[in-house]
Amino acid sequence: MSDVVDLLRAELGVRVDTSPGALEAARADKSGHRSAGAPLAVVHAASVSDVQRTLRIASRTRTPVVTRGAGTGLAGAALAGPGEIALSTRAMTRILEISADDLLAVVEPGILNAELNEALAPHGLWWAPDPASRAISTVGGNIATGAGGLLCAKYGVVRDAVLGVDLVTADGELMRLGHRSVKGVTGLDLTSLVIGSEGRLGVIVGATLKLRRLTPGHVRTIAATFPDVGGAARASSQVTARGIQPALMELMDAASLAAVHRLLALPAPTPGAAQLTVQTDGPAADAEADAVARVVREAGGAVVISHDPAEGERLLTIRRSVHPAMEAMGTTLIEDVSVPRSALPAMFAEIARIEADFGLVIPTVAHAGDGNLHPNFVFDGDDVPAHVWEAADALFRVALALGGTLTGEHGIGVLKRRWLVDELGPGQWALQERVVRAFDPEGILNPGKVF
Amino acid sequence: MSDVVDLLRAELGVRVDTSPGALEAARADKSGHRSAGAPLAVVHAASVSDVQRTLRIASRTRTPVVTRGAGTGLAGAALAGPGEIALSTRAMTRILEISADDLLAVVEPGILNAELNEALAPHGLWWAPDPASRAISTVGGNIATGAGGLLCAKYGVVRDAVLGVDLVTADGELMRLGHRSVKGVTGLDLTSLVIGSEGRLGVIVGATLKLRRLTPGHVRTIAATFPDVGGAARASSQVTARGIQPALMELMDAASLAAVHRLLALPAPTPGAAQLTVQTDGPAADAEADAVARVVREAGGAVVISHDPAEGERLLTIRRSVHPAMEAMGTTLIEDVSVPRSALPAMFAEIARIEADFGLVIPTVAHAGDGNLHPNFVFDGDDVPAHVWEAADALFRVALALGGTLTGEHGIGVLKRRWLVDELGPGQWALQERVVRAFDPEGILNPGKVF
Repeated sequence: MSDVVDLLRAELGVRVDTSPGALEAARADKSGHRSAGAPLAVVHAASVSDVQRTLRIASRTRTPVVTRGAGTGLAGAALAGPGEIALSTRAMTRILEISADDLLAVVEPGILNAELNEALAPHGLWWAPDPASRAISTVGGNIATGAGGLLCAKYGVVRDAVLGVDLVTADGELMRLGHRSVKGVTGLDLTSLVIGSEGRLGVIVGATLKLRRLTPGHVRTIAATFPDVGGAARASSQVTARGIQPALMELMDAASLAAVHRLLALPAPTPGAAQLTVQTDGPAADAEADAVARVVREAGGAVVISHDPAEGERLLTIRRSVHPAMEAMGTTLIEDVSVPRSALPAMFAEIARIEADFGLVIPTVAHAGDGNLHPNFVFDGDDVPAHVWEAADALFRVALALGGTLTGEHGIGVLKRRWLVDELGPGQWALQERVVRAFDPEGILNPGKVF
Repeated sequence: MSDVVDLLRAELGVRVDTSPGALEAARADKSGHRSAGAPLAVVHAASVSDVQRTLRIASRTRTPVVTRGAGTGLAGAALAGPGEIALSTRAMTRILEISADDLLAVVEPGILNAELNEALAPHGLWWAPDPASRAISTVGGNIATGAGGLLCAKYGVVRDAVLGVDLVTADGELMRLGHRSVKGVTGLDLTSLVIGSEGRLGVIVGATLKLRRLTPGHVRTIAATFPDVGGAARASSQVTARGIQPALMELMDAASLAAVHRLLALPAPTPGAAQLTVQTDGPAADAEADAVARVVREAGGAVVISHDPAEGERLLTIRRSVHPAMEAMGTTLIEDVSVPRSALPAMFAEIARIEADFGLVIPTVAHAGDGNLHPNFVFDGDDVPAHVWEAADALFRVALALGGTLTGEHGIGVLKRRWLVDELGPGQWALQERVVRAFDPEGILNPGKVF
């Protein structure tokens, strides 16, 4: 196997990194889980050609390749292990084009989501997908996982914000998928297929992104406190059922709220209280904020409306600190179930039941505007204890029974692989495997992930 | 081959139709082109089970199957010919669920787009895709072709409006692709892959559609007349470049305008004049209508703003009558190129050049809000004359050079197959073929279409 490293070095020189620190880092992502051991090498690709040359060597030697961006995934899709090449596109950070007239940007995959949006802002533009990790996650990684975020109820997910993807397939060929025009139905929509494919179909080396103009008008932030999480869930379902369209609507239960307050050294929140943070924007921001406040009060919430952007940002910082707060408590297994919005209260009731059944506390936050929940299981040590797997299993089955899905935005990776066939059914599971083989006949791209 | 018909009759009885009228109708769509001869039979499926039983017989006997909805396609994707089974899902018209709280509907594929929207309206809901054919085209056909329409610049195309698809694959297996929740990234996004796949991956037997609430507020219609089509194209590019978001923006050149006026027995329009019809809606309808009017006047257009919904509908009827007007003139070959919006003026200049080079008149309309043009070639007789193919070829290559695509919303079918590899490149073309084989190893589903 060191032959492979020699081949890589001969072709890619200093781009090939076998330092213990780099190999160790490539074993992990932000899921808190690690691969069984160090990969062969990390290739820090700086160009499309670097990616192509790496894949040609991998293909020739049948060496598995694990593509990585910033390593912020939450499902273990980018963990590189023994016998594998970790291929990082993190160093490919250029913005190749910004077109305000056509509302598009062409970028390399390694640029961070927040860096891209900083560069777009002076043009009056933004790329809407905003995973909580946006300060530390790459655009390529956002595409590979089909990331969501806080604003997607109003502004869409990654799938809605990508026109085209440049993909290097397992044999090193560069494919330009998709188009620059708003519309396009030439052949099969392989761009959509690549979004969320978690490194199984090819290496994303570029993307044509669909941009939005920065929303004119002010942002209003509604912070609502409820005596319990059920009230908050009912209020959020009512907001969507009434046809109000907030820019974001985030729900935090008592346990997640307490954990963040501890991490940020804030005064402890009222025990048992849950919080709903809602933002409205655009020309109707004030009218929508008032409408949200009415619904929330009817549902028993105590409401504060803020016109101050700094206060709004502070409230969102609390929401964005949930993952670090969980990390500070131990190893986490984060669920990512998504249910039809009307089923949110039922899902929270089921989580309470599972907490009681398994004697666990399951701190839970939700992108309530689109029915996407992140229940967190926190435990000590590297391995997921059996009773946590069982509770997670119960939780996933409940979501499915409510018309939901296993993962709304994090992906399958290795952590949710065990449940994939339960949702897809054996027929579709086998079909998806065949589609993967159409891209990667030898199975060298991220084998063992997802399927 | 009559064995196949016997097998079908034994299994499906009266659903199997070999009447000369039915066979003849199945040879054609709205492209004006026909298959080489009659198919073996038309199966009028009334249930998922009918579709499955038909496909099992087709699979066993390796008989090609051409799936059809209402036969309104414009690319020849649903033409059924000798030795083939025409499988119609037009009789599957049930609405199985409408959920206002979750903004979704579950439907069978044969329901007409307009019928669905009539059923949704009392709930305050609508399904946004609105191809010009919406009164006569099916939801299943809209999905199979990845249809666009007039409102997509603001409200999205079919790809943005489908959560899940129930698909029967070539071997008769029913697959439930996608989900009911707003978000979902479980495995590969096969739902998106099926959208626009033109009958090559399976038979769509159901769909979970993403709905919108009916837009509150009034609609404003801006009718603008320009001395030439270049002015209209520049005005429309300016509208999008200034960040104004009309609900629809339709451009008609002099030749298409004249043809519609003839068809509808209206007074002849000013020779050479082009028209831009723009609608704004929602809470900012008036402000946006004023902004559009300013841009249009700056670009040399004469503007009338109408607050009267009936007048707006009348103007759109003129736009929606383009296809019938072309049909009345002869056989048509409709291009469907889509370019980045800023390239619209350049594309119209190139069309004028091609008209001069080939001595043709090419009546052209455009969904100007998203850069999608329909240049029409009209000729006598069934076969496309050589010089028309050459002009169409020149036009497609210009669109590609401007960063555009071969088809924005009609699909490839048989009429645009000759250019597919030019846009995809041979590598991606072969990859797409392999993906098709992953769904349909024997190649019995709509063979010869698209690829």
